[in-house]
Amino acid sequence: MHTEEREIILNPSILSADFTVLGEQLKALEACGCRWVHIDVMDGTFVPPVSFGEPVITSIRKKSGLFFDVHMMTEHPDTHIDALKKAGADLVCVHAEACTHLDRVLGAIREAGMRTGVALNPATPLSVLDYVLDKTDMVLVMTVNPGFGGQSYLPAMTGKIRALRNMLEKAGHPDIRIEVDGGINAGTLQTVLDAGADVLVMGSAVFQGDPAENFRKMQALVR
Amino acid sequence: MHTEEREIILNPSILSADFTVLGEQLKALEACGCRWVHIDVMDGTFVPPVSFGEPVITSIRKKSGLFFDVHMMTEHPDTHIDALKKAGADLVCVHAEACTHLDRVLGAIREAGMRTGVALNPATPLSVLDYVLDKTDMVLVMTVNPGFGGQSYLPAMTGKIRALRNMLEKAGHPDIRIEVDGGINAGTLQTVLDAGADVLVMGSAVFQGDPAENFRKMQALVR
Amino acid sequence: MHTEEREIILNPSILSADFTVLGEQLKALEACGCRWVHIDVMDGTFVPPVSFGEPVITSIRKKSGLFFDVHMMTEHPDTHIDALKKAGADLVCVHAEACTHLDRVLGAIREAGMRTGVALNPATPLSVLDYVLDKTDMVLVMTVNPGFGGQSYLPAMTGKIRALRNMLEKAGHPDIRIEVDGGINAGTLQTVLDAGADVLVMGSAVFQGDPAENFRKMQALVR
Amino acid sequence: MHTEEREIILNPSILSADFTVLGEQLKALEACGCRWVHIDVMDGTFVPPVSFGEPVITSIRKKSGLFFDVHMMTEHPDTHIDALKKAGADLVCVHAEACTHLDRVLGAIREAGMRTGVALNPATPLSVLDYVLDKTDMVLVMTVNPGFGGQSYLPAMTGKIRALRNMLEKAGHPDIRIEVDGGINAGTLQTVLDAGADVLVMGSAVFQGDPAENFRKMQALVR
Amino acid sequence: MHTEEREIILNPSILSADFTVLGEQLKALEACGCRWVHIDVMDGTFVPPVSFGEPVITSIRKKSGLFFDVHMMTEHPDTHIDALKKAGADLVCVHAEACTHLDRVLGAIREAGMRTGVALNPATPLSVLDYVLDKTDMVLVMTVNPGFGGQSYLPAMTGKIRALRNMLEKAGHPDIRIEVDGGINAGTLQTVLDAGADVLVMGSAVFQGDPAENFRKMQALVR
Amino acid sequence: MHTEEREIILNPSILSADFTVLGEQLKALEACGCRWVHIDVMDGTFVPPVSFGEPVITSIRKKSGLFFDVHMMTEHPDTHIDALKKAGADLVCVHAEACTHLDRVLGAIREAGMRTGVALNPATPLSVLDYVLDKTDMVLVMTVNPGFGGQSYLPAMTGKIRALRNMLEKAGHPDIRIEVDGGINAGTLQTVLDAGADVLVMGSAVFQGDPAENFRKMQALVR
Repeated sequence: MHTEEREIILNPSILSADFTVLGEQLKALEACGCRWVHIDVMDGTFVPPVSFGEPVITSIRKKSGLFFDVHMMTEHPDTHIDALKKAGADLVCVHAEACTHLDRVLGAIREAGMRTGVALNPATPLSVLDYVLDKTDMVLVMTVNPGFGGQSYLPAMTGKIRALRNMLEKAGHPDIRIEVDGGINAGTLQTVLDAGADVLVMGSAVFQGDPAENFRKMQALVR
Repeated sequence: MHTEEREIILNPSILSADFTVLGEQLKALEACGCRWVHIDVMDGTFVPPVSFGEPVITSIRKKSGLFFDVHMMTEHPDTHIDALKKAGADLVCVHAEACTHLDRVLGAIREAGMRTGVALNPATPLSVLDYVLDKTDMVLVMTVNPGFGGQSYLPAMTGKIRALRNMLEKAGHPDIRIEVDGGINAGTLQTVLDAGADVLVMGSAVFQGDPAENFRKMQALVR
Repeated sequence: MHTEEREIILNPSILSADFTVLGEQLKALEACGCRWVHIDVMDGTFVPPVSFGEPVITSIRKKSGLFFDVHMMTEHPDTHIDALKKAGADLVCVHAEACTHLDRVLGAIREAGMRTGVALNPATPLSVLDYVLDKTDMVLVMTVNPGFGGQSYLPAMTGKIRALRNMLEKAGHPDIRIEVDGGINAGTLQTVLDAGADVLVMGSAVFQGDPAENFRKMQALVR
Repeated sequence: MHTEEREIILNPSILSADFTVLGEQLKALEACGCRWVHIDVMDGTFVPPVSFGEPVITSIRKKSGLFFDVHMMTEHPDTHIDALKKAGADLVCVHAEACTHLDRVLGAIREAGMRTGVALNPATPLSVLDYVLDKTDMVLVMTVNPGFGGQSYLPAMTGKIRALRNMLEKAGHPDIRIEVDGGINAGTLQTVLDAGADVLVMGSAVFQGDPAENFRKMQALVR
Repeated sequence: MHTEEREIILNPSILSADFTVLGEQLKALEACGCRWVHIDVMDGTFVPPVSFGEPVITSIRKKSGLFFDVHMMTEHPDTHIDALKKAGADLVCVHAEACTHLDRVLGAIREAGMRTGVALNPATPLSVLDYVLDKTDMVLVMTVNPGFGGQSYLPAMTGKIRALRNMLEKAGHPDIRIEVDGGINAGTLQTVLDAGADVLVMGSAVFQGDPAENFRKMQALVR
Repeated sequence: MHTEEREIILNPSILSADFTVLGEQLKALEACGCRWVHIDVMDGTFVPPVSFGEPVITSIRKKSGLFFDVHMMTEHPDTHIDALKKAGADLVCVHAEACTHLDRVLGAIREAGMRTGVALNPATPLSVLDYVLDKTDMVLVMTVNPGFGGQSYLPAMTGKIRALRNMLEKAGHPDIRIEVDGGINAGTLQTVLDAGADVLVMGSAVFQGDPAENFRKMQALVR
């Protein structure tokens, strides 16, 4: 499967949203064709800040039909699976570095009726994926260090995305999506697409200014 | 200082708010005389859920003039002090159970220009306050176990509030506020006021239904 | 309620049992009037050894009608409550030092249909009990440091038992049992009874040699 | 060395035994040719349950001549080495995921006069073995996620066993045993043998019903 | 026993020493009558910095006859007891906040042939000492928050020292020393002596400038 | 770049120094051509002992112009970066096993104006370096398990050094230094040089006896 054939998903991260009018911002994005939203749960231990979690997801689920891609930047993410399902998550992405029992956690997410993702910090080698591909729907290659918005794309990640795309093809899992998160904007978008990514998280690139307008511009670039 | 003379503060907790229209809800409360808002930061480790943190506080600070009373249900709350100040917190309340160096943490909060609170889990004895009263602006007596909305008031807490009010008077600190959080509603309000509380956190009692209307009803009860 | 009126319970601890014939040993004890058995769950973190847990309890429950008094010398004992109930525990005793949310844990044990105990390490002050007595059925005063069999009774604990008995009477909870564990034998038995204990854990004093015979001797001493 | 030439060891796991008659069950197994027994120590932190540890091993050592293969599903397994030796362990198998200093731990086990094993969770890549093979007597490939009996064999583990057998041959360590644990029964036995395993842990497959009879049936299948 | 009758010990803390000429500085202090030296071991976890530990103590023990009062600002101080004894410590003082099993740790220090101290952070209540006085040779009242030199004395600690002195007298332990550490200098010395302290740790007050000269000045003040 | 062309650095470790005359010993080494000094910071958690940290580095920086190569055998080394820079470190080497966010930590060290190192325990595979080479100035291959002086070189590390040198060449990073630490002396020196190491840490080999004399002897061997 080549990049051209792959469906590209633009995935706005609400970490950069305005939390006083969150419902309105999501509605505007949905109206212009946005289908996924990236939800960065941070716990103050796996990464320094506490961002948001179950109560916020529960609120927006009631008003939004978007696909909720929940990125758990937390320790022991398995303890949240039931609450995330109840809150309305569609996909739960956990960090390999936070899971001593990664296979068990992925199995539990699927059993709860959600899709699975495995997130990798920039320094984490791809070998941690060797034996979990059959339980993985998406791999999230962090293209900055997690925990903070507004950072620049790490150039060393381009080779990692490419190596991962090769690994997935060879392992007979060409359908596993590759998501990238961190520093994705008009300047880096083509690089990550060429390397093999197909889900692009965008924070400030969408929410700085008018979210719907920004989203449409990015859409145009992708087509 | 007797209850009658003490100013009573009704303190809606946004844990029960609607996060799609948070700005609007806070504005409505402010419009009907609300002056404080209680912000429950949960980290998924000190308590099971992750609620919300710095990004949410930053957003609402831009639109709201309320006094931000931030209750840190987190491990190592000292690592958040700078970010909370920058986000717009007015008071940071930390759990005694989460602070090996409680005096240091309270000192750091004041040094950052915010007021201090010490929160006590239901089982925690008052002796943990013995040597920190001169750095404490408020004590938060948890009247349910922290981490979840919608629980019932623990009757054993009435005696604790009373004992704390006595302790504060005897120690020469009659001005330290006593906040209560958990199961406070029309049915328990008078009990905690009589025992000596003067800051009343209200979650579902305010946000279930019309927040402004509920707030006004509770205001009427207090007067 | 005076010592004379209080029912005294002899409580053999299987930590000192022979695990190749555990069923037989429990049957022999039951046959000579033993009604409780003390089950010391150790996790290798709260105390250095791993002793035994759910699988062992499940096995003996099928063959024994004894009252299972399970002493959790473990971190985060709340994560075991469901498994302990299913395994057949009648009472779950947790260490105050291991519970940040002691009231919540005790509530969960009762909700699961079991009785509650709070265990105190030798150095732990009684003030940790100040606000949990209404959820406590038994207090376990460790009379040695937990984790190892065969230690000698700590003399400083006699005053602690006495102070606790006073505290319980004054607080209107004369029915809460006081269990003692560590170095209890023919030589120390009268001391702890006089001080106010009514549940006596016995390890080597029962299991070194013939358990039934030892138990009968101890019974005779108590009467 | 091909599978045919490799001695196959059937290794009953007492996790599924009846703990009221453990001595008797082990004797019956020994009588029908069983030579190893698998002892699953769980600590409630590395895996959710507490199973059993030193006191149980000490008891059965006095009555049994079996080779005690102790699988430490625990954090900081190094703190148990001396106690395990004293209790009567013959081999101590530690999880790579639980050892920051894996080489040191393996060295300490050998220095204490026992054989060494390295256990790998299903998701753990084989690269963690790259530099410890000269201190390893056995690798335990977990074929289910550790912590619970009665799970089904994970198909992705067949390729892992095969890759490991290749790795050992190439690295000049054909004598290192490969143990498999989880879902091993009449249906999966041939698969794991073909892939290169030579020590087969069996829980319910042996202990559900008559242990000796089950063991003999499995023996017949292996020959 | 009144202050006048109590022997006062001036106890220079090498945290403020010059580590290029440590042997020389200790010799100079010893020459002018100094008998104790305070050794602040910090681990980077209980307190933020790593200061020094066993290798430094071993070196100075070979050249110095001073009484080594080792203050363990570390997690799990029990794991260091043997190494500290071997390095040459005379007294090991552990933080109550770092010891789940405080009685056991104090017992182990004495068993290793050293004297014991219990250190209390400024916020820690005196009740943690209720049941360990018979194993305690000294209580260290931290008069600043541990971890950093050059802080100012916390005025709330004067009442704590006084309350502790009363507690010790009433409990029949008038011989237990009270050490103070933090902000002790010419200006605060009389205050802490009057309150009941008898071991005075001094950092910058001794080592800023000429240690011997400073020590003599402080000696003159005490007499 | 071949071994012959590579500059070899002899790097005495002060872990084996005499801390009563540390300034003098460093001066003597400097006088005979020594340019680097290896500073082993141990925290009592990542490795069992506490060695020394910021206060010692600060003292020696004032008197020495050596290149300070600081090896952080500590948990959460990122929390020390500012203090190490202030104390006078030139290079900060962190353990891959202690860094969940290794890329972030290396970035922070460089941003603070110091060079970076990544240390690997003997068992750690080289794959942890796959995506951090562009932020790494040196890799420290531990040739013994960290935490203790006086151990013997682990023979399995020779292959690891060689594999690492190959990896660096292939990845286009021939300038990254390879440091070895543990059991390096006259007997092992040639082995590690041949394998590709160029920075040799020496503890007892330098400090046992006369440091300057030993250093000169080792220098002669290297040339």
